[in-house]
Amino acid sequence: MKKTIGIDMDGVLADIEDHILQTYYTETGITLTREDIKGKSEEELFPDRAMIMKICNREGFFRNLPVMEGAVETVKLLMEDYEIYIVSAAMEFPLSLFEKYEWLAEHFPFISWKNIILCGNKSIINTDYLIDDHCKNLDFCKGKPLMFSAFHNIGKDHHHRINHWREVPALLKGLEEAELSLA
Amino acid sequence: MKKTIGIDMDGVLADIEDHILQTYYTETGITLTREDIKGKSEEELFPDRAMIMKICNREGFFRNLPVMEGAVETVKLLMEDYEIYIVSAAMEFPLSLFEKYEWLAEHFPFISWKNIILCGNKSIINTDYLIDDHCKNLDFCKGKPLMFSAFHNIGKDHHHRINHWREVPALLKGLEEAELSLA
Repeated sequence: MKKTIGIDMDGVLADIEDHILQTYYTETGITLTREDIKGKSEEELFPDRAMIMKICNREGFFRNLPVMEGAVETVKLLMEDYEIYIVSAAMEFPLSLFEKYEWLAEHFPFISWKNIILCGNKSIINTDYLIDDHCKNLDFCKGKPLMFSAFHNIGKDHHHRINHWREVPALLKGLEEAELSLA
Repeated sequence: MKKTIGIDMDGVLADIEDHILQTYYTETGITLTREDIKGKSEEELFPDRAMIMKICNREGFFRNLPVMEGAVETVKLLMEDYEIYIVSAAMEFPLSLFEKYEWLAEHFPFISWKNIILCGNKSIINTDYLIDDHCKNLDFCKGKPLMFSAFHNIGKDHHHRINHWREVPALLKGLEEAELSLA
């Protein structure tokens, strides 16, 4: 049986940072760049939680996110050796549920609906690996956590870091080999 | 930490049988009663898969399902001792995603969005117990399977059967005590 990989959407398959910054500017008139936000938590950066909720609950917000560079070709490649599950914490933004389904159907049509999970928290998700940008998911996941770089996790170093999708196949190969050599 | 229970929606929290039979009659003119369908698989009963897809993809179908008798009070009671997760294989019917969220918000408002999982298959869901009517989910679940009675599982006896929600607290208590006595 193939090993399983759970893959997060926002900040991992979908490049959400620019989109949030642009919408934040539209809402507040405040300009923030990717450089400005590096290393800051979401709470530090956006203390007005209601504003972020408003942005993320807006129709079309999730439907129109750009795909993260390298995600499509790497996920396709990984599917040769792994069972891939998309695991997105979408339930806080109920309007996003159908949009996320549509977004995946457009950009990742080779992923079956059987392999999509939209959830609240990820604590009962059990995959051999979890690729996610949030430590709140990675710190407690049942499999091996792999941290996809995002502004809010810069400076954290307690998980394997992924800077770009192109690194993933070699990282997984290395982890599998290390595991075999320990067995 | 509380033990976890995953609970299915259709046929477990939501009483889907009558609703399907009524809609089937409207579509086909064929009258089927609960008695007629007992012990038959969904495939035997509805060989025209496209028809069932049409029924289930109709706007409002999942939103308007009645609540299974005893479900609300029992789930509320179970939450005192268990962490409850709603786990519904909703992804085949993408229109149902938001409807299922709304249905839960109406009938089970005491369940947090954090504890809702809408998925394709349930193979990577890991809870201590899974209450479900489908053997395709129960046979391979990671925790202890508890089979909620439905027309298609009559005659199957390889899982603990639940005939009514009122039986669940005592069933769980018995299972916990049996486990303790073995420990």
